Amino acid sequence: MADWEKRRAWLRCLNGAVPEELDTPLAVAKYETAAYFSGGRKVEIRLDRELGEGYEIIETENGWLVRGGETGALYGAYALIRACEAGEEIPVGVQKPYYGLRMINCWDNMDGTVERGYAGRSMWFEGNRFDYEPARIRQLGRMLGSVGINVFCINNVNVHQPAQHLLDSLLPDAAAFAALLRPFGVRLMLSIDFSQPMQNGVPTADPLDERVQSWWADTAKRVWTAIPDLAGFLVKADSEHRPGPNTYGRTHAEGANMLARAIAPYGGSLVWRAFVYNCMQDWRDTVTDRPRAAYDLYRPLDGAFDSNVVLQVKYGPYDFQVREPVSPLFFGMEKTPMAAELQLAQEYTGHQIDLYYMGPAWREFFDQMGKKRVKFIAAVSNLGRDDCWTGHPFAAANLFAFGLFAWNPDADPETVLRQWVKLTYALPAGQENKLAVLLMQSRAVYENYTAPLGLCWMVRPENHYGPSPYGYEFQLWGTYNRADRNAVGVDRTANGTGYVEQYPEPLRSLYADPQTCPDNLLLFFHRLHYGFVMKDGRTLIQRIYDDHFLGCEQAEAMAADLSALDLPSPDREEAARRMEAQVQNAREWRDVTNTFFHRFSGVDDAQGRKIYD
Amino acid sequence: MADWEKRRAWLRCLNGAVPEELDTPLAVAKYETAAYFSGGRKVEIRLDRELGEGYEIIETENGWLVRGGETGALYGAYALIRACEAGEEIPVGVQKPYYGLRMINCWDNMDGTVERGYAGRSMWFEGNRFDYEPARIRQLGRMLGSVGINVFCINNVNVHQPAQHLLDSLLPDAAAFAALLRPFGVRLMLSIDFSQPMQNGVPTADPLDERVQSWWADTAKRVWTAIPDLAGFLVKADSEHRPGPNTYGRTHAEGANMLARAIAPYGGSLVWRAFVYNCMQDWRDTVTDRPRAAYDLYRPLDGAFDSNVVLQVKYGPYDFQVREPVSPLFFGMEKTPMAAELQLAQEYTGHQIDLYYMGPAWREFFDQMGKKRVKFIAAVSNLGRDDCWTGHPFAAANLFAFGLFAWNPDADPETVLRQWVKLTYALPAGQENKLAVLLMQSRAVYENYTAPLGLCWMVRPENHYGPSPYGYEFQLWGTYNRADRNAVGVDRTANGTGYVEQYPEPLRSLYADPQTCPDNLLLFFHRLHYGFVMKDGRTLIQRIYDDHFLGCEQAEAMAADLSALDLPSPDREEAARRMEAQVQNAREWRDVTNTFFHRFSGVDDAQGRKIYD
Repeated sequence: MADWEKRRAWLRCLNGAVPEELDTPLAVAKYETAAYFSGGRKVEIRLDRELGEGYEIIETENGWLVRGGETGALYGAYALIRACEAGEEIPVGVQKPYYGLRMINCWDNMDGTVERGYAGRSMWFEGNRFDYEPARIRQLGRMLGSVGINVFCINNVNVHQPAQHLLDSLLPDAAAFAALLRPFGVRLMLSIDFSQPMQNGVPTADPLDERVQSWWADTAKRVWTAIPDLAGFLVKADSEHRPGPNTYGRTHAEGANMLARAIAPYGGSLVWRAFVYNCMQDWRDTVTDRPRAAYDLYRPLDGAFDSNVVLQVKYGPYDFQVREPVSPLFFGMEKTPMAAELQLAQEYTGHQIDLYYMGPAWREFFDQMGKKRVKFIAAVSNLGRDDCWTGHPFAAANLFAFGLFAWNPDADPETVLRQWVKLTYALPAGQENKLAVLLMQSRAVYENYTAPLGLCWMVRPENHYGPSPYGYEFQLWGTYNRADRNAVGVDRTANGTGYVEQYPEPLRSLYADPQTCPDNLLLFFHRLHYGFVMKDGRTLIQRIYDDHFLGCEQAEAMAADLSALDLPSPDREEAARRMEAQVQNAREWRDVTNTFFHRFSGVDDAQGRKIYD
Repeated sequence: MADWEKRRAWLRCLNGAVPEELDTPLAVAKYETAAYFSGGRKVEIRLDRELGEGYEIIETENGWLVRGGETGALYGAYALIRACEAGEEIPVGVQKPYYGLRMINCWDNMDGTVERGYAGRSMWFEGNRFDYEPARIRQLGRMLGSVGINVFCINNVNVHQPAQHLLDSLLPDAAAFAALLRPFGVRLMLSIDFSQPMQNGVPTADPLDERVQSWWADTAKRVWTAIPDLAGFLVKADSEHRPGPNTYGRTHAEGANMLARAIAPYGGSLVWRAFVYNCMQDWRDTVTDRPRAAYDLYRPLDGAFDSNVVLQVKYGPYDFQVREPVSPLFFGMEKTPMAAELQLAQEYTGHQIDLYYMGPAWREFFDQMGKKRVKFIAAVSNLGRDDCWTGHPFAAANLFAFGLFAWNPDADPETVLRQWVKLTYALPAGQENKLAVLLMQSRAVYENYTAPLGLCWMVRPENHYGPSPYGYEFQLWGTYNRADRNAVGVDRTANGTGYVEQYPEPLRSLYADPQTCPDNLLLFFHRLHYGFVMKDGRTLIQRIYDDHFLGCEQAEAMAADLSALDLPSPDREEAARRMEAQVQNAREWRDVTNTFFHRFSGVDDAQGRKIYD
């Protein structure tokens, strides 16, 4: 048995592999329930196509009946197993997913690297070709299906050669890969390069050029012939040096619609990322404000997109920082189908070394945005070839929770987490609770010792791990804190860059006034003197010190709590090793951040704790 | 004719190639003089082995007699040609080189990259093997020989696989390469990996272990059998994660002597780099001071090295910064043969984009050190596969000047430069002078807009180009400016880290007192308040602003001067393009540096010039 086969994440209770001859979700649903339930408990799986992705669990004399559509039945089967295994109440009645596309975006490159990947190399690409164990991909499909994820985009949105050939010479390989995931209700998606026609004899990529339209129509036909249930194409255009419609003086709507029309005959979705900003900003320019960029660009285009375009918007206006307000774009595109983009890969949240359970952040996000603002949901993958799948064994909780939140955005993060704990570990009495408490606080702890009060980008530019308060300050990325001896932050009110005006009421007024703005976003919206008095009476500078001392103490306490848990090997050792690194990281963040602000402000800590010169 | 063949640097007057059948320096000397001199002028070349590398030029009735040893005759021939072509007085009489080894260290990797290379890829390595045009390597040899450089180390001191195999499977290829340079008096040197025995079946690299000693003795025999005139081995040990004797609790003398004994029978030199410091320093640690490191380590070992060990010491105690004091190690190793290490590659001096003629810096260096402190001299190469050999066509002046300074450390930088200008370009009257003036001021200009007053490491850590005043501040490299709202710099006097105590008098007292310390080293040795009053009455902060405004204005003026020169194509376009980048760079340095210090100090510019917030 390969090492990865022994590492089953939350599928501990499902021994062995799903037999490879099972090629439909219905067949898998029957297999999984038959294998799991024993001791006289019987489960009947019944196809009811009208339920689609939904299911109904009905109690029977000696077990349960699960009715559902082809995939719905599978989701019902897994929901039943999860509830039974976790000792929870069985979710009888009809359940349907809230979001239609529940997508994972993988940033895997065909050379085997994973952009912002912290779980090893790609699970399916190596040496510029597909290279994987089929059994492992089936097990991956099982993990995804068990939490209701239904779309899997396998290649990086930054499409590097030879990933362009996924649409031609590598298409049969992509189709073979799709076949491995299909029995688990998971459909493939492909990231494409907007300029791709030009690598195939078309002299332009102008979306209004008929040759370009016809090239994409031909390509779509070829691709959907090979993979009839392909979910769609994912596009990063005119962003961070990627080609796009702006090159030809066309709008993003014109660019997206051209692609959308090529794939519409096959039911495909054209997912267009709204991550567009000026990545060549002059730091001297205080008028341009990167968080404004997406709203300024897309808001005028609302209503101009075809119905099978999906505008995919990151949860905040920057880029997956530890703390950002909800993106105002969610409130500005009433006529455009949108997807919210989350990030499981812990790019700015600790590299799957530091603990960071995302459930609480997502609860806040959905509450701020309102779940109805988007139709779909996506998350950047935290998966890789590491034996434990997600780098840190606890990072699997984020993939698990994403599936459950994508199904039901009203989910309670702690309930979700506790199910994950029970499914993943058989811990002695009391320890389940300790692990859940540890993870539930992890995000607040990480925020305490890193970003102060919504001030973003104080991280090392070269790897996005560890502190560098001025590392981004004079660069081209539009990411400035403008700290000086008196004050810190960017004024994003009407007196400043006006960013806050992009929000509807009541958020606009809430954020615009430092007296009402939530503490944890104060320095996102305001430029404040170090002596600014916070709601609790502390000064801004004292609060920065306090948060960083506290966060580091909390990390040290978490290390003690973790060491008391009887985790199985090798999870125990892996988690301990990473926790040691996290405590080091927390100390570094604490000291660098406090020293940075102390050097500027000259204000000593009120409690006389050690701040290095 | 290949493009590189048309770019002849300072060998413009020597048309065509040296015929490949000429295989001794004497034969080349005869060929070059016969080809160059015409119109009745005759040159006789006469071998006089007693002169060794020296030569004597004697005027004859219709030309000159050049007497010299095998290589001396060649150097005499080239000196004669250079003087004639430049219209200078002929250097009659006996001339001998001051330094015995005049070495170029190439940081070429076998994958074709060049560490800190700014002239394209390696001229002789590609795809993990030798890959070169023999005619180009001969032309390279001719360039080196024409200025008296006699040792050429072809591989990076950071020895990455498969460069280890230069000592075994790749040795025949290295020997073939050596044969191409030999007719120009240039001997090969190889960088070796201290741990190499362990990659060949020896379980240790402990220098006191007999198996290690015997492995190196066998290796030396094999290597010198293949390349009998190999100059020696170059070693970077216990430095920046390279293996070394400290791993085994042995001293650097024990490590170096073991290798030196293995190669002594063949007359080889063991060049041991003294670039050793703690590259994992905690920034909170204010006691450890990186500039102290080499002296603290090596001073106690003076007298312990074998006679064929050469301790190679960078000119300053840090690492090729724009401005450093002379390394105190030169004054502390009376019994140890030493080489001074310069850097032609413009790692911290503008990447061969910004103009930086090094002659004036070397004049200061030799004057501060005293030429007798070292027996040998080395410089890191600025060469690459670019057509023009050195990235910027003017950067060739540094390679040229290095040869002349290595021959005669009393050289005048302007005289050397003017010869280079005359040999390189046939400029209209008056323009030679303009180009020489431009280059003579280039170093002072670069210093003005970059490093203020000896404050090092304000450069971007990721590429060493462009400003990042706090980029190194909280890192592991021991490179801190500790700027805060009151003061900047590290106190290196007896009250501080004590570094200044490593100098003998009168330097010690000179540097220790901020009232006598040269302005351009003030912030290297002292921590000073922004209001510190300089010798000319200006405050420290005003001087920082003034230097940066001035440096940028000077760069802009240089751009205007350059555009008025009638340089030949493509030098004209290449120089213009780079100058445009230099002006941008100068503006960026000016604004970032001034803003950084303004944000800390709160002091406005006395002249009211623009400092960005």
